[in-house]
Amino acid sequence: MSFKNFKVVPKMIFGRGSFAQLDEVLAEERKQANDFVVFLVDDVHKDKPLADRVPVKPQDKLIWVNVDDEPSTKQVDELTLEVQAHSDSLAVSVVGIGGGSAMDLAKAVALMLTNEGGSAKYQGWDLIENPAVHHIGIPTLSGTGAEASRTTVLCGPERKLGMNSDYTVFDQIIMDPELIKDAPTDQWFYTGMDCYIHCIESLEGTYLNEFSKAYGEKSLALCRQVYLDDHPESDDKLMMASFMGGMSIAYSQVGACHALSYGLSYVLGYHHGIGNCIAFDVLDEFYPEGVKEFRQMMEKHNITLPKGICKDLPDETIAKMVKVAKSLGPLWHNVYGDGWEEKVTDQLLTDLYRRI
Amino acid sequence: MSFKNFKVVPKMIFGRGSFAQLDEVLAEERKQANDFVVFLVDDVHKDKPLADRVPVKPQDKLIWVNVDDEPSTKQVDELTLEVQAHSDSLAVSVVGIGGGSAMDLAKAVALMLTNEGGSAKYQGWDLIENPAVHHIGIPTLSGTGAEASRTTVLCGPERKLGMNSDYTVFDQIIMDPELIKDAPTDQWFYTGMDCYIHCIESLEGTYLNEFSKAYGEKSLALCRQVYLDDHPESDDKLMMASFMGGMSIAYSQVGACHALSYGLSYVLGYHHGIGNCIAFDVLDEFYPEGVKEFRQMMEKHNITLPKGICKDLPDETIAKMVKVAKSLGPLWHNVYGDGWEEKVTDQLLTDLYRRI
Repeated sequence: MSFKNFKVVPKMIFGRGSFAQLDEVLAEERKQANDFVVFLVDDVHKDKPLADRVPVKPQDKLIWVNVDDEPSTKQVDELTLEVQAHSDSLAVSVVGIGGGSAMDLAKAVALMLTNEGGSAKYQGWDLIENPAVHHIGIPTLSGTGAEASRTTVLCGPERKLGMNSDYTVFDQIIMDPELIKDAPTDQWFYTGMDCYIHCIESLEGTYLNEFSKAYGEKSLALCRQVYLDDHPESDDKLMMASFMGGMSIAYSQVGACHALSYGLSYVLGYHHGIGNCIAFDVLDEFYPEGVKEFRQMMEKHNITLPKGICKDLPDETIAKMVKVAKSLGPLWHNVYGDGWEEKVTDQLLTDLYRRI
Repeated sequence: MSFKNFKVVPKMIFGRGSFAQLDEVLAEERKQANDFVVFLVDDVHKDKPLADRVPVKPQDKLIWVNVDDEPSTKQVDELTLEVQAHSDSLAVSVVGIGGGSAMDLAKAVALMLTNEGGSAKYQGWDLIENPAVHHIGIPTLSGTGAEASRTTVLCGPERKLGMNSDYTVFDQIIMDPELIKDAPTDQWFYTGMDCYIHCIESLEGTYLNEFSKAYGEKSLALCRQVYLDDHPESDDKLMMASFMGGMSIAYSQVGACHALSYGLSYVLGYHHGIGNCIAFDVLDEFYPEGVKEFRQMMEKHNITLPKGICKDLPDETIAKMVKVAKSLGPLWHNVYGDGWEEKVTDQLLTDLYRRI
């Protein structure tokens, strides 16, 4: 038995208003006069007050990124070319500001600036050869745990899969709860539920140890304070829930919901957050208590999920999703333990998708 | 308002039996044939099974360290000389195996191998100039949080004070719950109470934010499972409680108990763990619920504290302790907030010490 040597973000700032410290943090990386920084900022912030607060210097490159679609290897490669066209020298830092998608794009570009051949080549585990450019994550939407994780999930030519490596992990994160307070209710809910569902899946899974359990339990308790109790410090608590949910992944794994959700994203283009919610809503047999509580949260926040999405889809579309979901062995291993292969049949998955 | 940019241990392994992975972890640091590693191991393990499991190579230096007394700047400087006498080149890693004292010695020696002039010179905040040698912490006693912290606390010529710096933080920790299962009950209790008391002090303090609160609350809940519920996975839980207690210090601070305890250690030589317990037992007015629960824990584990230690001490001895306790401004600021100077009088502290 060998335990994972878990790489975590080595420096972090947490606090209301701490976004203002970004300039100071970057000053430590800027050593020569023409050293430049790349900012990848979710374009929802383009005409918002945050736009004026990004500490961009004349030599820097700010790119507004659109994440209406899930991040793809194509988008990453295009962004990398755009950054390379900006200067012959290497950026001293890549800063991702936004939700999981914008942060994942920043991680991916920081990696691709020092690893050649395009991002599709590195989808998988520990395929990255060279350390990334210094990179910073600043969430403006909480729940994915992207700020804490060692992956950047990309839709590639063959599948949706992360570039998982120690080099993927941010060098610095800034967690400023003020940045998440204006998120639209739907996004705030779907993204937070990514964290909630992740906790349920890992706490009920077979992989768990006390490290991941401690983080998962606290993250879950914080989610409840946010989505059931309307705690006055909800923004702070959701931000910590997301971070701790990300930390809990060290020795745990997601489960049935994420497996189904990956199929929905890959084949139908659903965003990760809402995809999880749609899938979780049919998983009563897998997570009875969790699904029940999730529905209370939906009711409380007047969330209505799309229904009957897969009911009338052609068999071959369902088969494609089944194939994606089935390919995620570790997730099913976490659900069923050894012998999962016999339990996760095409019939089971087809039935689940048809209910969605 | 500026928030601390919190440096944490970037790589960690958690798991039963994970001590066996130390050799593999060190292999990544050993690049040349004669690269050597320094092991500082608490001498309580000298004739125990763990001694044979330390992966020492012929070129390495293993030193059994005695921590009957609290670590001192003198001891650190002597150990540093001993390591320097072993080889003209720099060690590739310094490994501390033991409780908070042994781990603190490893941190301090790793710093002193690259920073000249003796450790007393660096007691304080951010005085270290050069990065330390790579260093690894492996707790065999849990509760101090030394595995997670940015300090190494030393008794120096003038006072007991840490070398606090980002360079102090371990590069790697290995948390193997099997290593703490054979600790003598007294030490297991006193060291674990360091964590429990630290949580009470920070959760009731004025410095707290949601980052430290989330960690502190979970750490406290784990302490309760260990010391009140006799949970079957107590070793795993105590190890996580200690780690999370250490993480919670990011945006919090200890309080009245640690202030009194520092005086007891410095003047009377009490070890940190038992010193905290003795001090906490007279702090009903400060932490009524916490002290009550602490006494339940003592009763459950048949712990008897020494009593009447300070009752008959000469006034000048008490005055010395009062001076140490009073000098710890941030701790009292955390207790009382602004204006603490008027509240923390010599009389208050003298009365508290006389009750000890």
